[in-house]
Amino acid sequence: MTSGTAPVSLADLQTGIEPGLAAVRDEIRRLIEADFPLIAQLNSHLVQMQGKMFRPTLLLLADAATAGAPDARAVALAAVVELIHVATLVHDDAVDHSVLRRGMPTLNALFSHQIAVIMGDYLYSRAVIELVRLEDLEALRVLSRVTNEMTVGEMRQLLAHDPLAFSEADYDLLIRAKTASLMSGACEVGARGGSPVERRALRDFGEGLGMAFQIVDDLLDFTGAEAITGKPAGLDLREHKVTLPLIYALPRMSGAQRSAVAALLENPEPGDSDIVRVVDAVRECGGLEYAHLRAQSFCARAEAALEALQPSAAREQLRASLSYVVERRT
Amino acid sequence: MTSGTAPVSLADLQTGIEPGLAAVRDEIRRLIEADFPLIAQLNSHLVQMQGKMFRPTLLLLADAATAGAPDARAVALAAVVELIHVATLVHDDAVDHSVLRRGMPTLNALFSHQIAVIMGDYLYSRAVIELVRLEDLEALRVLSRVTNEMTVGEMRQLLAHDPLAFSEADYDLLIRAKTASLMSGACEVGARGGSPVERRALRDFGEGLGMAFQIVDDLLDFTGAEAITGKPAGLDLREHKVTLPLIYALPRMSGAQRSAVAALLENPEPGDSDIVRVVDAVRECGGLEYAHLRAQSFCARAEAALEALQPSAAREQLRASLSYVVERRT
Repeated sequence: MTSGTAPVSLADLQTGIEPGLAAVRDEIRRLIEADFPLIAQLNSHLVQMQGKMFRPTLLLLADAATAGAPDARAVALAAVVELIHVATLVHDDAVDHSVLRRGMPTLNALFSHQIAVIMGDYLYSRAVIELVRLEDLEALRVLSRVTNEMTVGEMRQLLAHDPLAFSEADYDLLIRAKTASLMSGACEVGARGGSPVERRALRDFGEGLGMAFQIVDDLLDFTGAEAITGKPAGLDLREHKVTLPLIYALPRMSGAQRSAVAALLENPEPGDSDIVRVVDAVRECGGLEYAHLRAQSFCARAEAALEALQPSAAREQLRASLSYVVERRT
Repeated sequence: MTSGTAPVSLADLQTGIEPGLAAVRDEIRRLIEADFPLIAQLNSHLVQMQGKMFRPTLLLLADAATAGAPDARAVALAAVVELIHVATLVHDDAVDHSVLRRGMPTLNALFSHQIAVIMGDYLYSRAVIELVRLEDLEALRVLSRVTNEMTVGEMRQLLAHDPLAFSEADYDLLIRAKTASLMSGACEVGARGGSPVERRALRDFGEGLGMAFQIVDDLLDFTGAEAITGKPAGLDLREHKVTLPLIYALPRMSGAQRSAVAALLENPEPGDSDIVRVVDAVRECGGLEYAHLRAQSFCARAEAALEALQPSAAREQLRASLSYVVERRT
């Protein structure tokens, strides 16, 4: 496992692939471009809020970690993966009525809910057009499946509001569809020049990594502060979204602690004190520790999958990305 | 031109292709299907509200009207085209907060706005998965372009609320993107087994037909009653959507008539009397007649395009579809 090593930064993971990532950014701008003022405006907003490019990083590393010459289409495919990711975020924010994303106003907050829905459709259809232009049926197959899985994940999310009816197995299905699918897909597409064994290995790696990523994301909602995550802590609880720490802790709670959870869920607009009481109860019942262990266990599976690859600098960067995911604060 | 002939019914257009259309309906059900209760529920609702299957009809007729053996994949492609159409309707209704569609409650009214956005994404990604399964890059190329054009059409729609700033040229761009693109795409995909000349002819035919279709749709909002269109008359005006009859009539109005338009646009929730006054003004200034003539002119272009095809029963049904579009009351 990766525990015990020095903290890993995103820059560490991206060493050596910076030129590829810069090309991905240019490509994204080109893909969104349109001769329509509203889209140009939205484009510049999206470029500004561009995030960590974690999925393109995975795709380029998977490409570099597989045997065979680097694939010239990897940059274009990495741009498509990020575009699909952004399209999903835009619709998620619209569905959730979120006002902040990465510390910046969301499209629905800045423009309107209508524009956010249409813009998500625009971005996704641009991604499909680009995949067709590349004439890469294999990438199309992976990414259309993944996109569909993500929509099912979003539907599962709507059901994740009742901790008594939402089990850990439901949670696993949810985060697999919502998050692990695209990370796994990014790795699989990056590996498409490799052998079937390598492709399978990187697909499995991406899935384990993605599961861990989402668990840590949900953990940060309990432990992070607004300044570092770009969103207020306790936001999931505030919206009555049930995640792993609460699922684990609930059956282990005292009567008083359960009442605190019930009070929060019954309150359509919970206050900070409601949140704090539930966060404390979850911590005291081991929910945070358990979620952290689960994240580490998914990382261990992902790390085991890497053994099928030849040793390379890129393979070690993929390994390091597991530490990055578990240790990150944002 | 088609005027002067006996009224054409949808059944006339679909004579001979009923088995194909029945297969398309089965295929759509199969495509939407998922092992997830919410989707099953939505699926059965969508099957119930299934409409006239006009786009699949066009695709199957275009397939039959082109030289070469009938294409075995035409049914699957027709299902995909209808699925894309339904996905677009679901998002349009969500964006517009519409409560009725074809006389039935919309998904956003019946379930929630959130579910409608996610369900539209689900349907569209299922359509892409099916196109990839068919390994038909040409159909993918046409339909991904068309889908993207439709999203730009939706953005143009958001700007169509100020009759002084929205010209007839803007209106043409809007309806070309919003409606003509998918009808043209359905014909083009149906014709993909034919010669380049036939494909071009059917693409042009579909575009003319689609332009006429949308103009008549907008006309029916002025002239139709709720009982036959499944939506209340004057709905566009009520929502301050500017369409061709008003664009044409406005510069020809008297001061009093213009005041009626201004009063309607300034009223966030116009009453029936506001609507009636504007409808009357538009009629008196020739707006309805002009829109009808424009629809006929687009039909004439579409009919001319058919001349490039060999004579066949399917070609005559495509010709009859022009009469159907112009004469329809729903």
